Amino acid sequence: MCATCGCGHSHSHAQSVEEITLEQKVLAKNDHLAEHNRMFLESREITAINLMSSPGSGKTTLLERTIHDLAAAARPVAVVEGDQETRLDAERIRRTGCPVVQVNTGAGCHLDAAMLRDAIERLEPERGALLFVENVGNLVCPALFDLGERGKVVVISVTEGTDKPLKYPYMFAAADLVVVNKVDLMPYVDFDLGACRAHVASVNPKAEVLALSATRGDNVDSWYEWLVAR
Amino acid sequence: MCATCGCGHSHSHAQSVEEITLEQKVLAKNDHLAEHNRMFLESREITAINLMSSPGSGKTTLLERTIHDLAAAARPVAVVEGDQETRLDAERIRRTGCPVVQVNTGAGCHLDAAMLRDAIERLEPERGALLFVENVGNLVCPALFDLGERGKVVVISVTEGTDKPLKYPYMFAAADLVVVNKVDLMPYVDFDLGACRAHVASVNPKAEVLALSATRGDNVDSWYEWLVAR
Repeated sequence: MCATCGCGHSHSHAQSVEEITLEQKVLAKNDHLAEHNRMFLESREITAINLMSSPGSGKTTLLERTIHDLAAAARPVAVVEGDQETRLDAERIRRTGCPVVQVNTGAGCHLDAAMLRDAIERLEPERGALLFVENVGNLVCPALFDLGERGKVVVISVTEGTDKPLKYPYMFAAADLVVVNKVDLMPYVDFDLGACRAHVASVNPKAEVLALSATRGDNVDSWYEWLVAR
Repeated sequence: MCATCGCGHSHSHAQSVEEITLEQKVLAKNDHLAEHNRMFLESREITAINLMSSPGSGKTTLLERTIHDLAAAARPVAVVEGDQETRLDAERIRRTGCPVVQVNTGAGCHLDAAMLRDAIERLEPERGALLFVENVGNLVCPALFDLGERGKVVVISVTEGTDKPLKYPYMFAAADLVVVNKVDLMPYVDFDLGACRAHVASVNPKAEVLALSATRGDNVDSWYEWLVAR
């Protein structure tokens, strides 16, 4: 990992021993706190799902629809919203009636395990809850920080282009599920779903891929089935 | 800056003195190298433009059109492409006939001044050239790393939503110009250009905003006029 960006791996430029040592300490500390989160969440039978994507891929819209559609289900839902600044996303979630806490990272580029621990203390999700953690919009840095979650979901939208799994392989390698969102815009953009699936498989053969539209509702049932299977 | 993410500012979590000291050293070293780049570029009358955006906002498509449309101009153009992995973008630029060098950052989340220095040594741009530097797709981390460029351009697309300048204020605060791309998709998405302009102004009153379509060509002349004015 490089202290210049802190993303977990070495860059093309030279790193000092001091940098490498500190980076290893930072990641090790995060992994330790993530294990604490994982044990705490399991003791309460809470399933945490870490949602990651580029800015504007539709994570919050997907959550709004999911909360609405799962309202009839017996399972309580809670949300942690991560953004550099503003409470805009938390306000959107709050309007659905779902418990939510906003975490602002300032200039920070990802959520870490300590931030999730603090957010859970404020949120106090119910026993047995489904806890969505919407990470900072960033297809790079959040990939490397374990939060103690049960599953990592990467959302991409068809407007972003077919090549993203190849160009940002660390994120897609970390994913349990890739959601290809905004399929309602397919007629207007140059996006090849088959090629995108192949690109995901080339960096992560185990990841599932679901194509849906969070705004229009196409194929969201497959997403709910995936969640239930967790 | 936090060594966990290296983005240049403190997070909500506690930082050790060791972390803060190292982070200051990393940023100071980058600033020093950026000044060297700036002096070198000025001595060769090369104008470097740092293009930053989320993944898939259309930076490469904008460059392809720009290189084509400026071919008749007397000024030579050269490109440095930054991505975590692949040479896909460099290959797209190479097909235009423009000199290009690809920089792969691995897990790294941004270009830094040392990477640009090394790329320039390989690229050897002509005296008087317009040098485009396409940063890693990331609306967070690249904002804080001076490369020695003449201007910083942030590209967002209308599919990403109106609220991005508020949610990622560090990037928009750093911008000389904000390009709102993909206006050809305006009829199909919920995007308010007036509100987006107001959001940009609220975090950066000096930034210009140009709305255009890199694929269809709407208003690209304004972009060329901005470039000529540099």
